Amino acid sequence: MLRPEIAARSGYDAQHPAARIILDANESPYDLTPDIKDRVFSRLKQIPFNRYPEANSRALRGLAAEHLGVDEDYIVTGNGSDELINYLISACIDPGDRVVFPEPSFSMYRILAETHHAEVITEPLGENWELTDDLIKASRKASLVFLGYPNNPTGNCFDREKINELRSETDGLVIIDEAYSEFSGHSFVDEVSAGEPLVVLRTLSKAFGLAGIRTGFLIAPPQIVEGISTVKLPYNLNRLSQVTAEEALKNKETILKNVDIIIEQRNKLFDFLEEQGLKPYPTEANFVLFRPSCADGFYHQLLESGIRVRSFSAPRLENCLRVNVGTPAENQTLIEAIKEINS
Amino acid sequence: MLRPEIAARSGYDAQHPAARIILDANESPYDLTPDIKDRVFSRLKQIPFNRYPEANSRALRGLAAEHLGVDEDYIVTGNGSDELINYLISACIDPGDRVVFPEPSFSMYRILAETHHAEVITEPLGENWELTDDLIKASRKASLVFLGYPNNPTGNCFDREKINELRSETDGLVIIDEAYSEFSGHSFVDEVSAGEPLVVLRTLSKAFGLAGIRTGFLIAPPQIVEGISTVKLPYNLNRLSQVTAEEALKNKETILKNVDIIIEQRNKLFDFLEEQGLKPYPTEANFVLFRPSCADGFYHQLLESGIRVRSFSAPRLENCLRVNVGTPAENQTLIEAIKEINS
Repeated sequence: MLRPEIAARSGYDAQHPAARIILDANESPYDLTPDIKDRVFSRLKQIPFNRYPEANSRALRGLAAEHLGVDEDYIVTGNGSDELINYLISACIDPGDRVVFPEPSFSMYRILAETHHAEVITEPLGENWELTDDLIKASRKASLVFLGYPNNPTGNCFDREKINELRSETDGLVIIDEAYSEFSGHSFVDEVSAGEPLVVLRTLSKAFGLAGIRTGFLIAPPQIVEGISTVKLPYNLNRLSQVTAEEALKNKETILKNVDIIIEQRNKLFDFLEEQGLKPYPTEANFVLFRPSCADGFYHQLLESGIRVRSFSAPRLENCLRVNVGTPAENQTLIEAIKEINS
Repeated sequence: MLRPEIAARSGYDAQHPAARIILDANESPYDLTPDIKDRVFSRLKQIPFNRYPEANSRALRGLAAEHLGVDEDYIVTGNGSDELINYLISACIDPGDRVVFPEPSFSMYRILAETHHAEVITEPLGENWELTDDLIKASRKASLVFLGYPNNPTGNCFDREKINELRSETDGLVIIDEAYSEFSGHSFVDEVSAGEPLVVLRTLSKAFGLAGIRTGFLIAPPQIVEGISTVKLPYNLNRLSQVTAEEALKNKETILKNVDIIIEQRNKLFDFLEEQGLKPYPTEANFVLFRPSCADGFYHQLLESGIRVRSFSAPRLENCLRVNVGTPAENQTLIEAIKEINS
């Protein structure tokens, strides 16, 4: 009774080996401060759990609009960016329409595009993970083009002129996935608010340290926002997450101080990996992709030291591991463990 | 850049007129008790907001399995039943496949089926909202058949033998949407656990009084569950909702005492509406559909009294209003307001 290609799929494997230090999901190592949590809890104590949430997260959208410097009607809130990617594909893709993205990039683009009967076209990134002319060519007849900025799992921001070249050549809608944008300082949000036909995705899961509440934002021209709203589940963002996200945005100055620490630690980690001959790729995110001589062995040695990083099975990434920045203490433990392995 | 049929859609209208007493969304009038909320908050204080939730809500699934009397691998958790309906259609429908349901029924069946390029086939319910032979005939070549049990917005449970006749005649997957099942006392969950190829949907939004946390359960044979899991967004249920749902299930004896009060109040409301000549339909849910002589006028008169009920635009329901049971005090206010209108 299932679609044959769904019955043949293997599920997203959520089973991870236990470890003391978790550096495989690009999470922030920093929870909300006790002070901000107090504010969250005092708000949560005032809301009725038995009533449906505000269907379009009006208060949260207002705060997100202010944070991002766009009008409220440019924003859709989602149960994480994943849900917003799903809605974009739902709203724009007829069966057989083309969804284009580079390889490697975020795995959900393919999964969700295939679920929605799209024709998935990918082109490999270049030697240094740069956008290629082949990708631009493939994008011409695309309905949707997804670009991570910075890209996950490679960590780099593609050349802005190259992105703009792609945008000028494609007939489709270009989606800039800015999940890690706070760590790069670069964004396309201003271009959306200036009227460009472009979609930007943001999330509270990374720089804001709120992966647990699953809240993301889609920023797009109002006409696209309206289309997305007609495929959006009416009460997609629960009350508890809405309230928590609101308090986080109200206290963003405090929370985003962590970004500076994470960037500093990332640069330190990059230098260390380079010194150790582990071939890290330049990164503008909160993680580093690197290429040890034997990724599989290295992964298990780290796991024995109680540290979980991310391994890959895709051909271009077979020899790579991805590690996100933890607290300074966690990073120090990681550095010691790597020294030990390499000694 | 949107699909033409999406661009032509008008959004789900989430704007409701303000009112003092809200009886239009089939919510429970009862929030969690202070005691249970304390337990929820003491759990919430212990969890890291910066870490992704458990991808498959393992702890919650265990408690749901125990509550429903099925094995854990028969359960998928969802961000409300809406999300689970979306996944069922994603996993089972190729473009043009048939999704069948009676009219009137829950509006999301049509919206989500059309989003997924299904061919939607509906047949009207009979005079007393019963399943008809035409629906059974239409179901024969369906891929999915949705049946509310009790049905929303009519409130009745379809005849069980008629449902079984439909099941024996269709090649498709039958989904029994039991959002209001705690108020009827009837369920098909036992048949799923006995190995029948059937899907049941349950929710914490109604009898459990947790509409604000958006948590639903899909109960199906493991093979279906596995298929759904491959289209499910990996972290679809946030940490705060998981914890709250877990505590609710642990304290279900307390919470479900409200069901008896709601049933008693519903029966009282039904009798009153009948006495007043407002033609209520027999109901096994937490709401009553009724047919005043002028639904539109009646709706606005109630709104002037500070009470919001549900009106409809579908042809069969144009003259109907739906009102859910509130607290005894709210119901008394409703009764007084109706007496005033009818005097």
